[in-house]
Order: sequence, then structure tokens, then C-alpha cells
Amino acid sequence: MALKIRKEILNLGVYKAGKPISEVKRELGLDDVIKLASNENPFGCSQKAKDALRGIVDESYMYPDAGNFQLKSNIAEELNVRHEQVFCSTGSDALIKVICNTFIEEGDESIMAEITFPRYEASVKLMGGKCIKVPMKNNGLDIEEMVNCINEKTKIIWFCNPNNPTGTTFNKSEFNKVLSKIPDHVLIVMDEAYIEYVTSENFPDSLDYISDYPNMITLRTFSKAYGLASLRVGYGIASEELVGYFNRVIGPFDVNLYAQTAAALAIKDNEFLQMVYDKNKEGKEYLYNEFDSMGLEYAVSDANFVFVNVETDTVQLFDNLLKRGVIIRPGHLLGTPEWIRVSIGTMEQNKRFIKELKDIL
Amino acid sequence: MALKIRKEILNLGVYKAGKPISEVKRELGLDDVIKLASNENPFGCSQKAKDALRGIVDESYMYPDAGNFQLKSNIAEELNVRHEQVFCSTGSDALIKVICNTFIEEGDESIMAEITFPRYEASVKLMGGKCIKVPMKNNGLDIEEMVNCINEKTKIIWFCNPNNPTGTTFNKSEFNKVLSKIPDHVLIVMDEAYIEYVTSENFPDSLDYISDYPNMITLRTFSKAYGLASLRVGYGIASEELVGYFNRVIGPFDVNLYAQTAAALAIKDNEFLQMVYDKNKEGKEYLYNEFDSMGLEYAVSDANFVFVNVETDTVQLFDNLLKRGVIIRPGHLLGTPEWIRVSIGTMEQNKRFIKELKDIL
Repeated sequence: MALKIRKEILNLGVYKAGKPISEVKRELGLDDVIKLASNENPFGCSQKAKDALRGIVDESYMYPDAGNFQLKSNIAEELNVRHEQVFCSTGSDALIKVICNTFIEEGDESIMAEITFPRYEASVKLMGGKCIKVPMKNNGLDIEEMVNCINEKTKIIWFCNPNNPTGTTFNKSEFNKVLSKIPDHVLIVMDEAYIEYVTSENFPDSLDYISDYPNMITLRTFSKAYGLASLRVGYGIASEELVGYFNRVIGPFDVNLYAQTAAALAIKDNEFLQMVYDKNKEGKEYLYNEFDSMGLEYAVSDANFVFVNVETDTVQLFDNLLKRGVIIRPGHLLGTPEWIRVSIGTMEQNKRFIKELKDIL
Repeated sequence: MALKIRKEILNLGVYKAGKPISEVKRELGLDDVIKLASNENPFGCSQKAKDALRGIVDESYMYPDAGNFQLKSNIAEELNVRHEQVFCSTGSDALIKVICNTFIEEGDESIMAEITFPRYEASVKLMGGKCIKVPMKNNGLDIEEMVNCINEKTKIIWFCNPNNPTGTTFNKSEFNKVLSKIPDHVLIVMDEAYIEYVTSENFPDSLDYISDYPNMITLRTFSKAYGLASLRVGYGIASEELVGYFNRVIGPFDVNLYAQTAAALAIKDNEFLQMVYDKNKEGKEYLYNEFDSMGLEYAVSDANFVFVNVETDTVQLFDNLLKRGVIIRPGHLLGTPEWIRVSIGTMEQNKRFIKELKDIL
């Protein structure tokens, strides 16, 4: 081909997503398939959001509001930040890309955990940046060592808290200890996609810090606890100055009308969120008990999934579970050959997963 | 701020979208507002798509299919191309950004018309490229002069056909004449967002060319004739090799579930598309007649809008029309101070626009 592709593209892979239920049903001829692979919310989403979604179908021909006015207002009100501090795009994936588009130049360094959300690496590499991957400490982020890796080339440090795929969190005192060592030329990205599920005490909510740290950004999503993964909407909170730059990169209509409508209502539905929190906690404790009785090691989770050591080849285990209609996230896609990530489902789904897992192991 | 932003970001502006109806109603206290500013489809979208949209609300918690399987299959079938030649993202805006992400490096040149879709310039500049803007010829693209501007630094040439905001097209013989002069290191982007509205004969459908030109890409959208602007879905057709590279840049879940569902049905609903074509043609002829009787110059349009010379300051005209509940796209946002772009609405909307315009002028 005579066309010259940017060399950064040649180094990128294509993301391998969790298999959709329909595909598994089709391929394996199964009727009853459950997906515990993508940390979706098995309890659905707010009924108010659903009603509104059905109500806007006749408006499908219209462009969404480029300013995301109502959505941003509701987020600002709920989180007690200013409207101008909120930015939105098509899921956390897109926000991460926007941040890298804004900051990363060829040769810039970016620090992340070795086992973490893979989109940081993809977006940094897309812009020609270099990823410094710091080994895990007890399946969690080694934030002290991450901060030790900062040099004058460092542009961004990514803290995924709770961390995907391990579910672990660092606490306030650990965070406070390292925070003062981060120079102000480094952007601190706090990816809190799973914050609504946190059960640990002393969790450092980044919104308590951002007014003191103009180099800090909070990222959150409607794809997890709010149950709107289908619609693609994530949001960030940062200084007005930073948000002004991000809005030059974000496409004017990136967040679609359905997403804006549903998310604006979802963020106000605290009753739904509480139900999800309670059910998830119950499911998590059930899984812990079962893993304990099976003698399987797991990471203590603050999210809607558990990272568990199945002490066997997870490619094989993935296939065996798939044949029985249970989809999980296998370790070879996470960089951890003997660990899997299983989403916490409804209690019925959790029980079915445990039964099939016991049968196989 | 101690953070170092990429210099490219500092040169970008924020896109100014057409005012939403709700905003105009709120600001001006009006009840009955019509929007002829964003080339939306006033006839809505396919009923089959609407029914499906209402039917998937309970699936909102699930991620969309990362492979866009059904949507790509239906596009491939309708257009008689291979599944692997199709790529999708959140509207043409996003496709343009993906193309620039894939190709443009600092200092690369990119050729476009002076008055054309503004997202080419924004996306080229985002990646540090340089825009060569070629003056219009009778409100249309001067494709001969555009091709004359190619040099060894040229990476992409953008042909918007029909051109937004002028509505003009170039024909087969004009295109064939310049095509052989474009060297194979230059990517030819054929933006055909409005192709479904073309009434001119001898229009060069880029799909008739792409198998002979591996450096050519077709871009199309569901936001215009298909009436799905709210959902953000555009698609492209290119060689399998190029699509493979684009899929490394496109986010795995960029096209949301609602968009995939509706678009997969919309592309099959040729009856709806024919109705839209007929009504748009009728509305266009009505506007031509009225402009003729008012002595206003306009560009002959192959799209769902007309570019018309109102021979007055369009900032003022925009405000006056707004106060009467009619939103149009004023010239100062298009780079043409005395011309406006007016979308072709329902016949009732067209008549109201003409009445108000006559009153003002």
C-alpha cells in the first residue's frame, strides 16, 4: 500500500471484548446463557430512565444537545461541583482518549499499573507516548512505586481505584502519603468507574481532592452501577481550564440523545443506586464464602466483580464454562494466566456460576 | 497551569452547533419553533427502527456488540460490499477523526475546499496537520485546482459530494478527469453524507470506484436521510487493509446498542428512503421557486438544504428569524457573510420559513 500509516497505529492491537450472549447462543446452540464477563449491571437501570428512553423515540431524527446541558447540570448538582467542571463523552474509553489527545506527544511517558484497564495503554500509544507499567503489589496498585517512576518526561499517571480487573482499592492514608510527591506538571487521572460499589472504609473520593489539585481529573461512568452500558456515556470532573481544552477535542455530538436523557435521570435516582449497592455486596459476600470453601485465593473487591485464582489454565476453563452457558473474563486477556475476573450477577447467576465452576474444578 | 497541553489543542476552537429548539423556546419564550439549521430529517426515521428502539430498553445495561456484526452485515448486503470493508463509528465526525488519527502526522498537508464541512479542518489540526483550503468555483468544489495542490507532503484530499454547506455536486466526467492525476500516496476521502438526496444525473457514486482505487474511502451517515441523528452512527467503506487499521483506532463500543439496532433496520427500509427523497425534492423545488420569485441567488442543491444569498448581514437575519421561531444556519458560521444554509423541512415548515423571510427582507 502506497499510503503511509502513522507508525503508532502499527503497534496497536484490536480490543477483544467479552463475547455477547447472542453470539454464544448462536455458536454453541445454547438457550440459557449468562454473561459475567463485562461487569454489566444485572439489575438493569433506573425505571425513570427506561420510561424516558421509550418516550424520546419520535425525536430520533434530531441532533443531541451539543452542550449536554441537562446532563451536566444534573451531574454538577449531584456531585456539588460547577457545571463548567463537567465534561462528557462516549464512555470512559472515550474520555481516556480525549485526555491523551490533549496531552500526549511523541516520547512522553505515562505511568500505569501492570494489570489495569487496558485503554490507558491503547490511548497513550495511539498518541506516540511510552507506557511505564509498574508491577502489582498484592494484586493492587503499588502507588508508591508508581510515583517513584515519575521523571520530567512523565505526562500522566493513571490511578484506577477500584482497579479493574483486580477490584482492589488504595485508601486515604496511602494516597495522602504519595500525593505530595507528585509534581504539578503531572496529570493525575483518578479512574473511579466502580466507585458506587466501594464497601471499604477510608476510600479516597477524588472529588474531595480536586479543588486542591488542579492537575487532578476524576473519571466516572454510567456503564456500571447506573446500568447504562449500552448507551455509552462517561463523565469527568476537572478544573474549568482543563475542561475547556477537553471540549475542543470532544466531538460536538459525541454523547447521543438517548444517553443524555437516560443518564440525566439515572444520576438522580439514588434509590436505584442503593438497591444495586446492597445486592452487589450480598453477591460479593456469597462469592467470597464459596471461594473460601473451595480454597481459592481472591482479591478483596470494591467493585462489581471478583478477581480469583482458579489455579488452572483459564483458556481451558473459559471454554468449559462457555459450553455450560457461563461467560467470564479469562486471565490470558488480562495478563494473569491463572486468575479470572467474574462479574457479580444476580444471586441466581452467582449460584449457577459457582455450581458450574465446582463441577469443572 | 504547570501541565503542558499539546500545542495543536491551543489552535482549536469549540464547534458551534445549531441551537436546539428547547433552548430557543426557553430563551425567547416561544411556543412554536422550527429548526432548519442542522439538516435533520423532518420526516423522522423508519417505523421499523422506532419499534425496535422501544423494544430494547430493557437491554440498556448491556454493552453493545463490539463487532457491530448485524449492522455491518446489513450495510454490506445493501451496498454489495464485503463485511470486512465496512467500518462504523459515532457519526461522520468520528470517522473523520479516526482517519486523521490513522494518517496525519505533524506537518502533513491535507487539501479541502474553502467552504466545506468544518470537521475536516478540526481533525487535521488536532493531529498537527496543515490544511490547504482551495477557493470555491461557483459555490462548488474546484476539484481540478484541489488536485493541482497535491505535493509529496499531501496525505488526504477531502471531497464532500454533495458539499456541505453549499449542496453542490461535481459529476462523473469532472471526477474522472482529475482522478487519474491523484497519486496513490494520497488518501481520497469521499464524504457522501447527503448522497441519498442527490437528484442530479451523472453523480459519481464512490462505491463504483473504490475497488479500482485502494486509496479511496467512502463516508456515509445515518444522521441525514435515515433520520437517526440523535443516535450518532456513521459508516465508511474502504479496503479490508484500511479498515483493519481504522478498527485499531475506533473504540470497541463506540457505536451504541440503540444506534446499531436502529441503523441495521433503517438501511433496509428503502420505502422510507424513497418517501424522504420524494418529499425533499418537492420541498427543494418549492424553495427554488420562491427564491426565484424573490430574486435571490442560490446554489443548485443535491442535498436536504439550500445555500442562498440573502444579500444582507446574516447575523441580523438569524436573530430576526429566531425571534419569529425559525432557526437557520447563518453565514458567519460558514465563512459566507451574506449566504445562509436552510434545511429543507416539511412543506408546512418551508412555507413558514419563506413567509417569515419575505416579511423580514
